[in-house]
Amino acid sequence: MNPRLDAIRQRAREAGADAVVILHPPHLRWAVGFTGSNGALFVTADAAHFVTDGRYDTQARAEVEGAEVHVPGYALFEHVVEHRLVGEAQRLALDADRTPIGTFERLKALFPAVEVVPVAALLDQQTGAKTEEEIERLRAAQALTAAVFNDLLPLLQPGVREQDVAAEIVYQHLRKGAERMSFEPIVASGPRGALPHAHPSSRTFRPGELVVLDFGGVLDGYAADLTRTVAIGEPGEEARRVYEAVRTAQAAGKAAIAPGVSGRDVDTAARAVLEGAGLGSYFGHGLGHGIGLETHEWPRLSQRADDLLPLGAAVTVEPGAYLSERFGVRIEDVVVVREAGCETLTPLPTDLIVL
Amino acid sequence: MNPRLDAIRQRAREAGADAVVILHPPHLRWAVGFTGSNGALFVTADAAHFVTDGRYDTQARAEVEGAEVHVPGYALFEHVVEHRLVGEAQRLALDADRTPIGTFERLKALFPAVEVVPVAALLDQQTGAKTEEEIERLRAAQALTAAVFNDLLPLLQPGVREQDVAAEIVYQHLRKGAERMSFEPIVASGPRGALPHAHPSSRTFRPGELVVLDFGGVLDGYAADLTRTVAIGEPGEEARRVYEAVRTAQAAGKAAIAPGVSGRDVDTAARAVLEGAGLGSYFGHGLGHGIGLETHEWPRLSQRADDLLPLGAAVTVEPGAYLSERFGVRIEDVVVVREAGCETLTPLPTDLIVL
Repeated sequence: MNPRLDAIRQRAREAGADAVVILHPPHLRWAVGFTGSNGALFVTADAAHFVTDGRYDTQARAEVEGAEVHVPGYALFEHVVEHRLVGEAQRLALDADRTPIGTFERLKALFPAVEVVPVAALLDQQTGAKTEEEIERLRAAQALTAAVFNDLLPLLQPGVREQDVAAEIVYQHLRKGAERMSFEPIVASGPRGALPHAHPSSRTFRPGELVVLDFGGVLDGYAADLTRTVAIGEPGEEARRVYEAVRTAQAAGKAAIAPGVSGRDVDTAARAVLEGAGLGSYFGHGLGHGIGLETHEWPRLSQRADDLLPLGAAVTVEPGAYLSERFGVRIEDVVVVREAGCETLTPLPTDLIVL
Repeated sequence: MNPRLDAIRQRAREAGADAVVILHPPHLRWAVGFTGSNGALFVTADAAHFVTDGRYDTQARAEVEGAEVHVPGYALFEHVVEHRLVGEAQRLALDADRTPIGTFERLKALFPAVEVVPVAALLDQQTGAKTEEEIERLRAAQALTAAVFNDLLPLLQPGVREQDVAAEIVYQHLRKGAERMSFEPIVASGPRGALPHAHPSSRTFRPGELVVLDFGGVLDGYAADLTRTVAIGEPGEEARRVYEAVRTAQAAGKAAIAPGVSGRDVDTAARAVLEGAGLGSYFGHGLGHGIGLETHEWPRLSQRADDLLPLGAAVTVEPGAYLSERFGVRIEDVVVVREAGCETLTPLPTDLIVL
């Protein structure tokens, strides 16, 4: 009925368990379609039970597919114990990366006859390989965010404040139907562009500066993530040289993407371009991250990423160069791992835009 | 030097530990002023060390007060081991409610000579009792959000979409200098007001309807949270009766607040008013929650809240009545627990506004 529940069961067997409890809201949405903030899904060999609290009664009954819905009030786990919803299960797997110690201890106390087994990277592979339907949702989210970017360009003029551009970015996303932002927009002008995580400030744009714009909206649950660096008038020769190096690095990263390639090798392909241009020490973060129901998810593209990219994975490719106290450049697209290489979902060119 | 570090040390002693590791970003901000998303603070009897990754090098050195800053790259815990930054500590406390199992296991493996002790509610009391400086920041955040509410009133007219009002709320907050929203705004009109967690939709306001507006911005790290229910033209007798009952319940809740009173007793005082009006079964959530560097924190006001309110705690008081498929009412202020009772920080009246 629900192939994702079968994928969860198979993952449990691999981990030596015969049942799984899922608590992380994006994983609940992925597994059974629930979009609320509180619930627990218990999957055993022959059943699936979803418990949530009274706030989500109507919503859970409308949304959840493939699991029986229970709304016992707030004592969710106690309801599962009382009604023996884990059946004859002996070993219950749970997400080691996201479950607090206190929840683990409570489950152990409530299910004394069951061994509770924390499993690292519980649903990484399962949620990481996107279906075609998920890829279309990611494409639609990227299209909405790209439309906001295009509408924004006339606003990017000398004298405009970073925080007003950020406000406009959020406003246009919500007007166009985004559920929310994937993360707080970054609008970093001039020397502030060299801080990869700059918060939008009251600083105003000046002629000839580069501005790094990094933002994305969530549509139908799927996150967009886009970065472009634009120039407020002619930026000069060095800024152009750095921009072209970052752009070439992005193309090299994309060219290295294929099923079965490691995240490290993709990162290395892009990093080598920046090193060749003498900019290696100015690229201080990983090349990209998985994206889907979460803005940052598995798999990663970095020097620490051993995992191999599966077919259908959606990742960002976002090299940058940050020249401290001078300027920064970053260019970011979302791509999908296809049989023949990678497909870019972001419907925008990467040429430098001089406004 | 930093009294909050002394409060952390005393909490460690109460929990039978001689060192503490803090990982939760709002707790890092509270303890040493760091506003980034990744770091670890190790506090021992005679030292405090803060480790973060390269993205936050400049920022951590500028922000952190009372702890020595280390920026070893990404292997934060390994750096602490290598440089023996926990000294002679025997028992290391950590937050049981927020630390994932995987992190707990990693710390145990890295510090084989130290007993790692998960502690529930690690910094609840410490962060819950606000200083006067914190109260002024909460007041400023409430004032900003109240100003957005006042500016919004002319927009609330028949034919306007919920999602456009939500977009305007976010836009005005960011323009006025909010760092971000405390949570996604709720704009729920007519029967949608009966869903306490309605997401803004494309539904348009109709004459005579009630609209529930629940939103808040973050200013200087501190969250605002405000709910008002307004009428788009005369709403009729029953809506007015329910509104007045909720308003009276809120006043009763506020009147019950004092240092040493339990969150349950405050909830009961408000709930009794709604029960007396025959609306008890339409109030399906707790009366309120602590607010500060996090939108939802300790202490809670609910039938499940045994803890006693400390002097200086900031909490929301937000009774509601939700008449399924008809309409909803909620009124929410932020208040502070004072010696003599409670002080309301929200600078707005609670009378029904008929537009």
